[in-house]
Amino acid sequence: MSLVSKKRVIVADTIIDAPGDDRLEQIFFHAARLFVEKGVGNVSMTDIAKAVGITKAGIYYFVESKEDLLYTLMRWGMDVLERDVVEPAQQVADPALRLETIIRNHLLNIGRVQGPFGNPITILVDEPGQLGPERQADIDARKRAYFRFVRNTLAVLQREGKLADVDLNVATFSLIGMIVWMARWRRPGGAVELDQIVDQITRIALGGVLKH
Amino acid sequence: MSLVSKKRVIVADTIIDAPGDDRLEQIFFHAARLFVEKGVGNVSMTDIAKAVGITKAGIYYFVESKEDLLYTLMRWGMDVLERDVVEPAQQVADPALRLETIIRNHLLNIGRVQGPFGNPITILVDEPGQLGPERQADIDARKRAYFRFVRNTLAVLQREGKLADVDLNVATFSLIGMIVWMARWRRPGGAVELDQIVDQITRIALGGVLKH
Repeated sequence: MSLVSKKRVIVADTIIDAPGDDRLEQIFFHAARLFVEKGVGNVSMTDIAKAVGITKAGIYYFVESKEDLLYTLMRWGMDVLERDVVEPAQQVADPALRLETIIRNHLLNIGRVQGPFGNPITILVDEPGQLGPERQADIDARKRAYFRFVRNTLAVLQREGKLADVDLNVATFSLIGMIVWMARWRRPGGAVELDQIVDQITRIALGGVLKH
Repeated sequence: MSLVSKKRVIVADTIIDAPGDDRLEQIFFHAARLFVEKGVGNVSMTDIAKAVGITKAGIYYFVESKEDLLYTLMRWGMDVLERDVVEPAQQVADPALRLETIIRNHLLNIGRVQGPFGNPITILVDEPGQLGPERQADIDARKRAYFRFVRNTLAVLQREGKLADVDLNVATFSLIGMIVWMARWRRPGGAVELDQIVDQITRIALGGVLKH
């Protein structure tokens, strides 16, 4: 069965929202899901091809090796994060609204992809030690750039007297931690809808770092 | 060189606070550090023996296999969490103080162990898919019991009108996410001391979930 043109697929008894119709995105999603479920070392390119419903040659049309696939899907995760979160937030001048935009859009970005263990793309991007040093350094640099973007927003709020009495680095890490953790706990068919979860976490996050 | 009787050891150019003098704890720490650095599948029992400074037979004296070692160190992580966090917090009757005790002690529990990628024990306990189903179910049940303990504390605060307008499950996940994320970002020799980080995250966490 080809899963390539289907947005909702059933794997075991779990509903999965695959990220899109694009074949490469389907490969990223199923590879990430298998990597998180079994550990990267225990997954073969054949396993991934079978999960996507294409031939092994079909996968090698897109990527050269398993490490190449892991690196490519991590970069894709960062591309989508920048498109969904950084670019829209840069258009927002007011720093409190910008912070809210970052938090909401990051949560929605994570919520777009839903596997049996949450969002496996987000989980993998935060997994240290799976890539060679140069490729890991590239991903780390992009994660640091995102960290600085969030931190700079908090710094503006601090200058304007709107931030609680918190260290900028600790506050930035705490916000990001709270946000990306949703990738690990949200389950398909959970009791609370994504929009409500986003509202709730946004309120908790802003309540934690803004002066009141 | 045996590292067994030393609390502070140098691995590469990074200072690591190993969790204690006990040989089994040293095995847990170095195994977890290697598992996180290289991925579980890429680490052999020989690598772990070398890192601890004992023979391979010395490791097999304590555990039967690599999966057994991973499971044993995850259970140890949960034992220490219950000892450091749940038991002291159960002695605190006031729910706001109990919540503060949970947050502070959980952060201090994570801060006790410090490797080059943060606290590798905490990171591994939250790694899905590395154990067989029965063992994973055992760890998951213990994590759920901890979740319920935190959630019950928030539920008491809600009944007393002291909780912000937040869903109990979302708030509990958000608090735990913010706390355990420290295991991934705190680095040896970072600019902010552990006590200060604990103060800051505690303030952010309470500000996020308590009514103000």
